[in-house]
Amino acid sequence: MDHSAQQHAGRSHEKMREVLMHPDAPGPAIHYHMIRGGSGARNITVWQPGTVGAEYIKTYGHYHVGALDEVYWTLQGEGVAIIQKRAEGADGPIDDEIEDAYAVHVRPGDALYMPPGWGHLVVNVGPTFFVTADDSPVDFGESDGVSLPGHADYEPVRRMRGFAYYVVDEAGKPRLVPNPLYRRAPDIRIIAAADYPLKRES
Amino acid sequence: MDHSAQQHAGRSHEKMREVLMHPDAPGPAIHYHMIRGGSGARNITVWQPGTVGAEYIKTYGHYHVGALDEVYWTLQGEGVAIIQKRAEGADGPIDDEIEDAYAVHVRPGDALYMPPGWGHLVVNVGPTFFVTADDSPVDFGESDGVSLPGHADYEPVRRMRGFAYYVVDEAGKPRLVPNPLYRRAPDIRIIAAADYPLKRES
Repeated sequence: MDHSAQQHAGRSHEKMREVLMHPDAPGPAIHYHMIRGGSGARNITVWQPGTVGAEYIKTYGHYHVGALDEVYWTLQGEGVAIIQKRAEGADGPIDDEIEDAYAVHVRPGDALYMPPGWGHLVVNVGPTFFVTADDSPVDFGESDGVSLPGHADYEPVRRMRGFAYYVVDEAGKPRLVPNPLYRRAPDIRIIAAADYPLKRES
Repeated sequence: MDHSAQQHAGRSHEKMREVLMHPDAPGPAIHYHMIRGGSGARNITVWQPGTVGAEYIKTYGHYHVGALDEVYWTLQGEGVAIIQKRAEGADGPIDDEIEDAYAVHVRPGDALYMPPGWGHLVVNVGPTFFVTADDSPVDFGESDGVSLPGHADYEPVRRMRGFAYYVVDEAGKPRLVPNPLYRRAPDIRIIAAADYPLKRES
């Protein structure tokens, strides 16, 4: 029996301030918990309910590196996933130009596909903990593989202070607010999981 | 927005050795993670997959104090819940005499009721993380309310080195093994959640 695999990390308010719409608003000490089992045991993520300066609690968000894709299964609660793809320039992706994007309302039973190269984050828009499982591999040999795995690129998200859209609470309903640092992004609305078109190619 | 509620605790191998069938068998550093939100946000528990000396990874187990009851919802994986009721003596419950007990196989979508006064623990018998939500209240004002909340009595479980039955892996299937320290316990088998008779009185 291999007992090495389980590891826990919490994402702190201090770290999340880099990507918040209102970095100076008060927030919980830990925004979300990650319990990493790798693709076999699946990874579990648990989001705190609530808002920080009207913005719903969210994951930091990252871009996948290389051919890596991922599926997120919603286990409990109500979330909005933001999935975005950067335009490609001569020197690689252009961080402030978003070519394609989706905002998808997810509930228990929904499985959401995150394609290679796309960025993604998930927001807890419900009153309870939001809980997902995902099949992302985690390399425990890395220096900080649990908290910031190396297959994911967080740097463009930090530079842009978040994704192209923030998800804010407006009278109890989620609403998208554009991040003004992006020069270009498609005009999107929140859609149902059934209307999300991206799927793993078989 | 109240940001005080979220707290994480992990149950260590060292602590779990008090209630294991084979206390000297090697095990993971943390057997399960608790993320406490109280009854509003629900509490989330995540069990490591695997075995310790053939016994499946389990929660420590406790008896409810007073009129408290609880519901467990299975969010991911495959588990066996052990629910047991002590005989009542002149001076209170008799720790080594179990009057009634159930072993219930649970899967995602199953909700299991734990009545006041009964003891309960849950075992991960599947290959992935096992994940539940529960509506137990948690008093964050207690000295160690997250790890060992005061509405729960762990002491009789420690004295008896676990519940009346251990759940062990026999060729990939869960099997019940009686704990020899109990003087009396009903002869039970693992039943499906649909056959579990205990329900919240309305």
